[in-house]
Amino acid sequence: MASQVQCNKLFGGFVNKFTHESKVLGCKMTFSVYLPPAATQKAVPVVYYLSGLTCTDDNVMQKSGAQRKAAELGLALVAPDTSPRGLGIPGEDDAYDFGTGAGFYLNATQEQWKRYRMYDYVLQELPQSSIMGHSMGGHGALIMALKNPGSFRSVSAFAPIVNPSAVPWGQKAFKGYLGDDKEAWAQYDATELVKDYSGRKQAILIDQGTGDDFLNKQLQPEVFQEAAGDKLALELRMQEGYDHSYYTIA
Amino acid sequence: MASQVQCNKLFGGFVNKFTHESKVLGCKMTFSVYLPPAATQKAVPVVYYLSGLTCTDDNVMQKSGAQRKAAELGLALVAPDTSPRGLGIPGEDDAYDFGTGAGFYLNATQEQWKRYRMYDYVLQELPQSSIMGHSMGGHGALIMALKNPGSFRSVSAFAPIVNPSAVPWGQKAFKGYLGDDKEAWAQYDATELVKDYSGRKQAILIDQGTGDDFLNKQLQPEVFQEAAGDKLALELRMQEGYDHSYYTIA
Repeated sequence: MASQVQCNKLFGGFVNKFTHESKVLGCKMTFSVYLPPAATQKAVPVVYYLSGLTCTDDNVMQKSGAQRKAAELGLALVAPDTSPRGLGIPGEDDAYDFGTGAGFYLNATQEQWKRYRMYDYVLQELPQSSIMGHSMGGHGALIMALKNPGSFRSVSAFAPIVNPSAVPWGQKAFKGYLGDDKEAWAQYDATELVKDYSGRKQAILIDQGTGDDFLNKQLQPEVFQEAAGDKLALELRMQEGYDHSYYTIA
Repeated sequence: MASQVQCNKLFGGFVNKFTHESKVLGCKMTFSVYLPPAATQKAVPVVYYLSGLTCTDDNVMQKSGAQRKAAELGLALVAPDTSPRGLGIPGEDDAYDFGTGAGFYLNATQEQWKRYRMYDYVLQELPQSSIMGHSMGGHGALIMALKNPGSFRSVSAFAPIVNPSAVPWGQKAFKGYLGDDKEAWAQYDATELVKDYSGRKQAILIDQGTGDDFLNKQLQPEVFQEAAGDKLALELRMQEGYDHSYYTIA
């Protein structure tokens, strides 16, 4: 969890500065967030601001005046740092345009710089979006995660429709919405998508009640498990006696 | 903008229900958000919850009790509806498993159902994340948008390094972080990425000061503009006299 290290009221909202231990980068990182006045009442849109060489999270917060407009429009601003800090890599502080303050928003491949993974940090660790769903929604969560491997930090599904192309609910819907083109069907079918999946080994949790009346005809999570093989860190938990209703979710 | 239609205090936080005119779906949509107590002090992680057939945003909010855990963990819950509503499509209300309440989280291709685009709605319209950046950060914003065409609602860059593989700043960084493999370089170079880009025609705004000392040697936004052709809705605004500093951002 992030710790708040500073909080300043500004234009009716707040500039907050946080530190946290980044799992992606393996060091303590600092970022700043401006929350507009509207954020106390609703979820507001987020704008990520990426700074340039030599900068930190402070530059846009202290020099741009962007918070005035963000307050007016009801936008949150999130400003990450520009590189890992204090990893102790030889040479990391030798130049303004390489190493500290110069992460270039990429995932380094060279051994010495392998903890420079600002691309994953900004895209995956900072937003902390997760997705989950139930039944048709479980299908939705799975396909969104498989089609966008970097977008969600955690993915879980209760009693998902894992292979809609092969079961009555999905066949009816796909034929109606997508027509007869089976290639188009495969683009929205978790089991078909995972067969061609080559993204990172995402952790996915599926919970399935054994007392679910739709288990054999519509759901069949083991079909997805088999297709996934070891491409995913998939956990399939069979829950004794639970059915397809919201009593199971609760 | 979304309008709040209901707000209930729960476990120290709030369940909010909003309606908004969805551009993606072309109809009025309702969604619910649970904000935990921690949301008044900081940006909290978001969990998207996708419901199953026949459901609305209410099911998880009223039946699951998930807010108790979300309050404890400091998570926001966002529950969208399960299909467009009230589009007046013939047959949309004839079955529980097709049409209203059964959007299946896909983008329909069949003419009659072409406004059923729950995939884009959940992935693009609802999160409302935007990304922007300056210089090296402008490079970061461009590559993240080009590598993840569905992830950001708006993308803008001040004085970005558009073609790092071809300029001194980028060549130094890429050689250091990525080694000599030019294929690896191309994966983080906006100009190279846009040449192979086949995603949706994203709107991207680039602001570039004409008084920027780095314009000719490091930035060259026209190189990106030329490579993009008509694949993007790119606007390149040259700003007379502005330089590379935060005075330009302000």
